[in-house]
Amino acid sequence: MNDSHPYLVGLIGTGVLPSLTPPMHMAEARALGLTYVYRPLDLTALGIDPARIGEVLAWAERLGYDAVNVTHPCKQSVLAHLDRIDPVAAALGAVNTVLFTPTGRVGHNTDTTGFAAAFTDGLPDAETRHVVQLGAGGAGSAVADALLRLGTARLSIVDLDAARARALADDLATRHPLALVDTAAPADLATVLATADGLVHCTPVGMAEHPGLPLDAGLLRPELWVADIVYRPLDTELLVAARERGCRTLSGGRMAVHQAVDAFALITGTRPDPDRMTAHFLDLVTSDGALDRPVDPALAR
Amino acid sequence: MNDSHPYLVGLIGTGVLPSLTPPMHMAEARALGLTYVYRPLDLTALGIDPARIGEVLAWAERLGYDAVNVTHPCKQSVLAHLDRIDPVAAALGAVNTVLFTPTGRVGHNTDTTGFAAAFTDGLPDAETRHVVQLGAGGAGSAVADALLRLGTARLSIVDLDAARARALADDLATRHPLALVDTAAPADLATVLATADGLVHCTPVGMAEHPGLPLDAGLLRPELWVADIVYRPLDTELLVAARERGCRTLSGGRMAVHQAVDAFALITGTRPDPDRMTAHFLDLVTSDGALDRPVDPALAR
Repeated sequence: MNDSHPYLVGLIGTGVLPSLTPPMHMAEARALGLTYVYRPLDLTALGIDPARIGEVLAWAERLGYDAVNVTHPCKQSVLAHLDRIDPVAAALGAVNTVLFTPTGRVGHNTDTTGFAAAFTDGLPDAETRHVVQLGAGGAGSAVADALLRLGTARLSIVDLDAARARALADDLATRHPLALVDTAAPADLATVLATADGLVHCTPVGMAEHPGLPLDAGLLRPELWVADIVYRPLDTELLVAARERGCRTLSGGRMAVHQAVDAFALITGTRPDPDRMTAHFLDLVTSDGALDRPVDPALAR
Repeated sequence: MNDSHPYLVGLIGTGVLPSLTPPMHMAEARALGLTYVYRPLDLTALGIDPARIGEVLAWAERLGYDAVNVTHPCKQSVLAHLDRIDPVAAALGAVNTVLFTPTGRVGHNTDTTGFAAAFTDGLPDAETRHVVQLGAGGAGSAVADALLRLGTARLSIVDLDAARARALADDLATRHPLALVDTAAPADLATVLATADGLVHCTPVGMAEHPGLPLDAGLLRPELWVADIVYRPLDTELLVAARERGCRTLSGGRMAVHQAVDAFALITGTRPDPDRMTAHFLDLVTSDGALDRPVDPALAR
């Protein structure tokens, strides 16, 4: 008889029904012989106002959930309902993983740790003296934090909303005093990219619902590495254009896998197999119809 | 990859943490290759007033539960929160299984069907012209209903609370007009047992916390069959005394297994293996320390 703990995990956010995170966790758990149910708890489908996140958390805890992942629009608002917050998540002011423990609710952020692992794993030895980041939203803030923790010396934030770019840059500069964090207007991308080692893309452009390129492909030099956090499709127009110009690329799929790897490890205390989770993820992403181009060969290696 | 639905099931009631029903369901699901998490949702431990059963049900449904079993003290109060009720459960006015379906919440009662299956399975060919039942509470009402459905011609209800015995007898007589349902005072047990084929015991006497015999053992004739619904311990003082006097016996374990067999089938649409579930149950009951006597050989066959 298998006496290991049967896990119950949820994903709280709006529009999460199509998320691949629940099946990714469950497939890995099956491979490890764990009983593991992971439910998408889609606030939109349930008609629950995201402002009621505290009530949703309380009931999830009462009804036997071990943990939840939390996504848009609750990553910041969830903090008020936690007992302890991991320092990385606290610094970022955003939590994507909540553990219900006997001594209280504990918040973590595996978007940050997941991007760092994806980057180290997918672009080993990439230079990070100067990185340009497109997009200063919630995902961008986690990615910027990871880049600075990985030793990026200068990070240039570019966003259509100059005030948002400025606010993120100021926040990052305060928390990473040894780095230079500046902002640039989209019109100045050519200038700022001229000295950059890499470009990281954190806007929705390139998603199935927002097709297109987030910048002029002519700005992509072969020396640049290009990372995208969009993963549906896995091979965005940006990554295709970058590879055509000889750039090394990192797809958003790798970050999606590593945030799940890290969350799974926090929830179960068991380190999952990242290669097997990547394979599961590729199975899922190719079978769910969201993929309209061949799989990024760097991820499928 | 296993693409079958991952099941999430709960048990709602007061003091349900030690219940063997959750591990019984999960062990059978593992044997069938199903992913199945079954959580005890103990209203006492959670500090939730049982009057809030409607709210608990609503949140269980929102948070992805497929079904819940419901036990004391919510088996009647849950009815007000259902969309449809199976006729057997409706007649009884008690539900122990709620399915959350796309077309609404559906209530069933597998205590009744479970006792009927246990009886047919464990005491085949037992005569049921006249049965004496001790105890007119919630469990007694489900058992009485099952006995009458199985063709008992005369059922005599005995309870220390004469009004409760009378109320149950009246209710049963209305719903089973072809049967004779009467009551007797505990002092008249000798008289009423003299003509009986069998005795079914539905009070808490004999449970680990309520040791003892529910009647004078001298009243047990070898021709009587004796059924107990207490299953902790599996071998109650009543069953031991009955076997010493040559009576055929049916332990409460068999009913506990069959209510779970029937609930599992309703929840999954897959008929479980009753013999395997019985074996799981015996493993659990002998390993949880609740058993202070050898296992009923009739159940362990």
